[in-house]
Formats: sequence, C-alpha cells, structure tokens
Amino acid sequence: MPNAEKPGNLDNFDQSIADVMIKAHEKPDGLPGYFGVRVEEFAPGRLVMAMDVRKDLVTIMGTLHGGVMAGFVDHTLGCVLYPLMKRGQWAATTEFKLNYLRAIKTGTLRAESTVLAMGRRSAVIRVDVTNEDRLVCVAQGTLLISDPPKG
Amino acid sequence: MPNAEKPGNLDNFDQSIADVMIKAHEKPDGLPGYFGVRVEEFAPGRLVMAMDVRKDLVTIMGTLHGGVMAGFVDHTLGCVLYPLMKRGQWAATTEFKLNYLRAIKTGTLRAESTVLAMGRRSAVIRVDVTNEDRLVCVAQGTLLISDPPKG
Amino acid sequence: MPNAEKPGNLDNFDQSIADVMIKAHEKPDGLPGYFGVRVEEFAPGRLVMAMDVRKDLVTIMGTLHGGVMAGFVDHTLGCVLYPLMKRGQWAATTEFKLNYLRAIKTGTLRAESTVLAMGRRSAVIRVDVTNEDRLVCVAQGTLLISDPPKG
Amino acid sequence: MPNAEKPGNLDNFDQSIADVMIKAHEKPDGLPGYFGVRVEEFAPGRLVMAMDVRKDLVTIMGTLHGGVMAGFVDHTLGCVLYPLMKRGQWAATTEFKLNYLRAIKTGTLRAESTVLAMGRRSAVIRVDVTNEDRLVCVAQGTLLISDPPKG
Repeated sequence: MPNAEKPGNLDNFDQSIADVMIKAHEKPDGLPGYFGVRVEEFAPGRLVMAMDVRKDLVTIMGTLHGGVMAGFVDHTLGCVLYPLMKRGQWAATTEFKLNYLRAIKTGTLRAESTVLAMGRRSAVIRVDVTNEDRLVCVAQGTLLISDPPKG
Repeated sequence: MPNAEKPGNLDNFDQSIADVMIKAHEKPDGLPGYFGVRVEEFAPGRLVMAMDVRKDLVTIMGTLHGGVMAGFVDHTLGCVLYPLMKRGQWAATTEFKLNYLRAIKTGTLRAESTVLAMGRRSAVIRVDVTNEDRLVCVAQGTLLISDPPKG
Repeated sequence: MPNAEKPGNLDNFDQSIADVMIKAHEKPDGLPGYFGVRVEEFAPGRLVMAMDVRKDLVTIMGTLHGGVMAGFVDHTLGCVLYPLMKRGQWAATTEFKLNYLRAIKTGTLRAESTVLAMGRRSAVIRVDVTNEDRLVCVAQGTLLISDPPKG
Repeated sequence: MPNAEKPGNLDNFDQSIADVMIKAHEKPDGLPGYFGVRVEEFAPGRLVMAMDVRKDLVTIMGTLHGGVMAGFVDHTLGCVLYPLMKRGQWAATTEFKLNYLRAIKTGTLRAESTVLAMGRRSAVIRVDVTNEDRLVCVAQGTLLISDPPKG
C-alpha cells in the first residue's frame, strides 16, 4: 500500500466474518472450488489467497490460461471487504482492470487484495498476484456496497 | 463497432484457422471446457462465443460468479485475432478491463469480441456480453502480437 | 451501442438541462476552456463533444499529448448523464479506462459518450473518439450518482 | 511496489536522460505547462511529479476537474521509462485505467509512477497520486516500446 493514510474503516474489521470466509474456503464450491482457492491470510483491509497452477488450467501453449488468472483476481477482489462492512451490508464487484505481467507455467499463485479506499457506498481495491516471488499480474477494481433492505 | 473506418487487416481473415478454432471448441479442454464455451460465429474481426449459466457457476447469493464472466471475457478476447495474423505469429492478452452491468441468474451468455484496431505489434479488442438480449458486461483490452522466432 | 435493450432511464431525458450544458460550453471555463471543447450533439444517453488539435497541445514528438485525450475523455464521460438524473442529483466519474489506438497530429477530435447502463446509484458509459473518421481512442467508465441531501 | 523481484532493467537507468527531463520540466510547454507540472524525484523505475490545484482547474462544484487528474496521470505514467530505454528507443502510453478515490479542493498533487514490469517491447506502470498525504487516485497502464528505425 502506498505511503498514505490508511482507510479509517479498517478499524471495523470483524474477525468472526473473516473466520466464516476462511472456513468456507476449506472446501469451496463453484469456480473457487474448481480452481482450488484457499485463504492464506485475512487481516483488516488485506486478504491473501492462493491456488496451484494445475496442468488442466494450462493451455496448449504451455502457459496458464489468462481466464484463470482473471477469475482468481475477481474472487480475491470481491472477498476482501466482507469483514469491514456492517451486518446486513453486501458488496459486489462492479468493475476491474488487470495487466498480465508474465506467462506462468507452474507453481503457486498468491493474490493479495488491499483496500485502498472505502466509503459508505463503494471501495477501491488493488490486487497483486505473485508466482514464486515474481509479480505476474496487477489489478484494481471497485466494489459497490449495498445496505440491507429497510424493514 | 463505432462509425469509423474498419481496421484494414480484416481482409487477411483466414477461414481455415477460424475453422480449426471452431472445431477445437466442440470439445474444449481446461477452462473453456469447464465453462462449456462454444463458438457461435467467427467472422473477420468478430467472434461470438456462448456458454450456459449452470447452477454450479452461481454463488450462494444466487448470481453468476463474476470470475466466470471475467474468465469467459478473457477467452473470447484472446481468440478473435488468430485468423487475422500471419502464419507463425501468435497473440497474448496483455491487459483488459471490464464493467459488470447486471447480476445474472440463468440463461445463456453471449460474448461478442470486435477488433477495434490492429497494428503490426498490438490490437485493441472490445467485448460485449449479453444475457437474454440484455447487455450484462462490457470490456476492452489489448493483445500483443509476436512474430515467430527467426530461424 | 450493442444490439441489446437500451437503458430505460433514457426516457427521462430533460432537454432543458441539456440546453444549459450546451450553453455553458459556448464559452467554457477551466480545462474544457483550455481545450476549447464544444457540444456537437446532446441526445438521450448520447453526447458528442468536439475539440481541435492545436499546435500547443502537441508534444515535441509531433503528436497530441495523451493527457489531452485523457482529459477530453473524462470531460465527455462525466457530462452525458446530467439530463437523465432527477433534479438535485449529481454524478461523479469514479473510474475509467482508455486505449489509445492511433497517434494524432492535426484536425478535430470527436468524442461520443453513450450510456450503456444506468441504475439508481451508478451508470456505465462508453466513449469512442474519432479523428477525421478514424477511431483513435476508446474508453469505458463508471459514474456514481448521488441523491440530494435530505432536508 | 509489491514484495516481489524488481524488474532487472532498472540497472540501466541513465541519469543524464533523467536530467534532461527534469530540466525540460523547469519551464514545460503544452499541457504540463498549463498544469504547472514539476519533477520532484527521478530514480530508477520511479518518478515523482507534482502540481498545484489552482482555482481555474476546479469546477463549479468546487472540486478539481477529473480531466486534470487524468491528464496529470497520463503525463507521469508516460515519462518514467525514458531513462531505462536504450538510446533511440521511445515509449508511448497505449492504455491506462484510473480510479478516483476522493474529491480534491486545494493543495498539491503528487503522482508517483513505478515501473512494475519491463520487457523488450512493453512495460507496465503503476501511478499513485496523493494530495496532502491522502491517496486520491490510483492508476495502472502500459507503455509500448519502439526500436529506432534500422538504418
């Protein structure tokens, strides 16, 4: 994270929600299940997830399919905010952009999501992905925060 | 495509390469296989691919996982250029950005990739994704074109 | 605009607000004044602005400074929504992405902003910029819509 | 910069080229002249530029015009690579994306460009902009590197 004030909302980190998400990733369903995504670290405003580069995720060119990276980035980006929101709120990724820096052949991907700014209605997230300590993908995107329906 | 000159390179469309890619998508491997991506149309500078929104691609919120859309967009974006390149050249997606416009629950996704500009070394592609005739995602990205190694 | 349903909100177009914005661009202040931006067309969900490539906006490489294009795109993107909002609402660009397609030396730039989707809280806009009928820049971005403070 | 290997090309930093660019910004022409951009630091793979938020760069809403930020980001992004290239090479920004994090009213903008990856033909750059120690804008983009014409 750049040398600047951290978002104040990081103080609202709810460890019990982070724990639920860590637990859910022990045997995830759907796309994160297909990828084999696991949580490595969940701290206020910071989430690290990992997955392995399996043979069947590699194209005939011998390198990881870019769509796997894109899906992995989307997932990590979308999960980081949950423990920072109020009960009942939810967040949805509304946009992101990524740059692929290097072709990937084997090993483990580690995606680190960082909350750069968080307001009442939206948050901006940065994602850095490394593969064996080399930076291989960078992304930034926006989450829109929704309030629970008023009863 | 906007009302502007089309890229000149569209004249170089090689139907036989398009046919190979259509054939390869009849029973695709890896990520496109997991998604069930099929080719609906492959024309000069324009590729339409489709996939169905299966239950296991939907999150517990009841909507399509954004990472599925991101992976589908990446795949469609990366394939459109092949029939336009010279033999031996290859193209790799180097970056893209997408905006999610609506939550998706069921039905079919149709991604249309359009070549907006193509030079000797790079090309810019636009992707529009519809779900039951509603625009649900838009993207734009860059492919870098590589020459075959000189023998 | 892609072959898909148009956003329903386009019916709310308020011509009197469009007229105020057209008038304001007859002698604009600040950045649009420095660029010499003018309104060419303002229709529901569609805004066309133009500016001339002056010598002092060109770098020593002989081509238009990319920052001029970026500023022009931001301005066009940010203005298109005003006649579609309710009285008292306002919109702010929260993000955008652009691809430069060609170097520009002279002539007129025409930026066309199109509303691709518009909800209660946000809208997604596409911008196509042409220079003498050649597509030279494409962009897409998000506007966040704010309600007037409750009295 | 993330905790990952730095791009190897940073060793090729040519201080004399950095000095030329610092000198050129003492009295810049065109857009950087209009903005009043100055160089604060130029190190291998890292460039810090600054500009002041003047009254005429602020809109009638009382906040900095987003197009000023976009133009400033483009300029900083495009300049960082020059001292790292071989003589005769040049680089052009081909795309970037930015997220605006906060409205800005007064003070100084500081944009820090960092080279995240640099290959033979392209480089990926990150830009963080602060205003009085608050992060106000983040961007990432691509520069395409061209070789001098062969004689």
